[in-house]
Amino acid sequence: MALKMYDLAAADPLLRFSPYCWRTKLALAHKGLAVETIPWRFTEKAAIGFSGQGRVPVLIDGEKVISDSWEIACYLDEAYADRPALFGSADARGAAFFIKRWAESQLHPALVRLIVADIVKILHADDVAYFRESREKALGASLEDYCAAKAEHLKQLHAVLTPLRLTVKDLAFVGGDAPSYADYIVFGALQWARCSSPQDLLEQDEPVAAWFTRVAALYDGLGAKAPRAAA
Amino acid sequence: MALKMYDLAAADPLLRFSPYCWRTKLALAHKGLAVETIPWRFTEKAAIGFSGQGRVPVLIDGEKVISDSWEIACYLDEAYADRPALFGSADARGAAFFIKRWAESQLHPALVRLIVADIVKILHADDVAYFRESREKALGASLEDYCAAKAEHLKQLHAVLTPLRLTVKDLAFVGGDAPSYADYIVFGALQWARCSSPQDLLEQDEPVAAWFTRVAALYDGLGAKAPRAAA
Repeated sequence: MALKMYDLAAADPLLRFSPYCWRTKLALAHKGLAVETIPWRFTEKAAIGFSGQGRVPVLIDGEKVISDSWEIACYLDEAYADRPALFGSADARGAAFFIKRWAESQLHPALVRLIVADIVKILHADDVAYFRESREKALGASLEDYCAAKAEHLKQLHAVLTPLRLTVKDLAFVGGDAPSYADYIVFGALQWARCSSPQDLLEQDEPVAAWFTRVAALYDGLGAKAPRAAA
Repeated sequence: MALKMYDLAAADPLLRFSPYCWRTKLALAHKGLAVETIPWRFTEKAAIGFSGQGRVPVLIDGEKVISDSWEIACYLDEAYADRPALFGSADARGAAFFIKRWAESQLHPALVRLIVADIVKILHADDVAYFRESREKALGASLEDYCAAKAEHLKQLHAVLTPLRLTVKDLAFVGGDAPSYADYIVFGALQWARCSSPQDLLEQDEPVAAWFTRVAALYDGLGAKAPRAAA
């Protein structure tokens, strides 16, 4: 029986944009596990109440319910140890945890500065007020004001990407010759931006763009084929 | 026969402060390999000319000569595969490479802002003019001017350490339950600051300080017992 996963969706149910859900979809593909994704919106808290919390991804594997993308990755390596590993060793998992902390504390905020005013445009009508109110309260500004200084925010994104750029300039993947869960963590962030905003944030001749294209092409183009916001 | 390593030294030959050499000394201890360290100063290029380049660490293992701390780490895992691994898997090595890039592009520059004017005070007389001239040219300011706004630079260091703080708040080591080469990369940077400057840059109640103490205590206190600059 295929696994099931609640996956954040826009008004267009095929437009899936959560960075955390992207991590999990790539992780499932890496393990060769088929998954049925169920579109879910921010305000459908009741639909995932059975998981004991209110965020996606939520993975259902038979009797098991796992939420939180990191917990899911650790679960998949344990439950499906005979399939390709997301973490090749305990220290790979530790270092990937550092990369997760880096992505969430440095890369995600730099992307929010560029895309949060675009995200609100793709949402289902039921999600718009919730999203705008909660984000504007957290950011202390209107979404549009928060994203206004675009040239400056692009420069900031370029600076934040430095450690990734210096890595994939020399390595095909963060995982080395082959992709690993660390790649999916960072890819998830940039795929979130790609899907929820019509802006192209990466310069084409930049090593990060070439790496992004490599990861997007994996698993029959899982990332590359995903619908994105219309311009 | 013990391995030999050229190790950057201050005027006091026991004061060893290079971040790259610290990585290698911890890596050798991790592998359980004894090493004889040879004090070396910046201007002693001729002494390591046999290595084909002019920087330390340089490791001599019988007939083999290896320079560059990353190359040395990869060499040690290959040549001494039966001893504890510095990289538990290929993807651990890739993720550690990202952490190396992060340390060198984010953490090292933040530390230079705080310690470069202290480093010049500990150097051997033969190194002082070389160090001051080359660094002042690279930084575009006198060492003292470059370090003047200390409160601001401490705040910047605290911000740069965020991904590490959020990692070691939850994990004993970057490597997880046990230390890995990724720990030594980051430790090397902070040990460079600890040895070459009398300033205490980490707040005592900060998770990074507790992690630093854990790494410094490894291998019979190799890092903790090392001489540091006098106040």
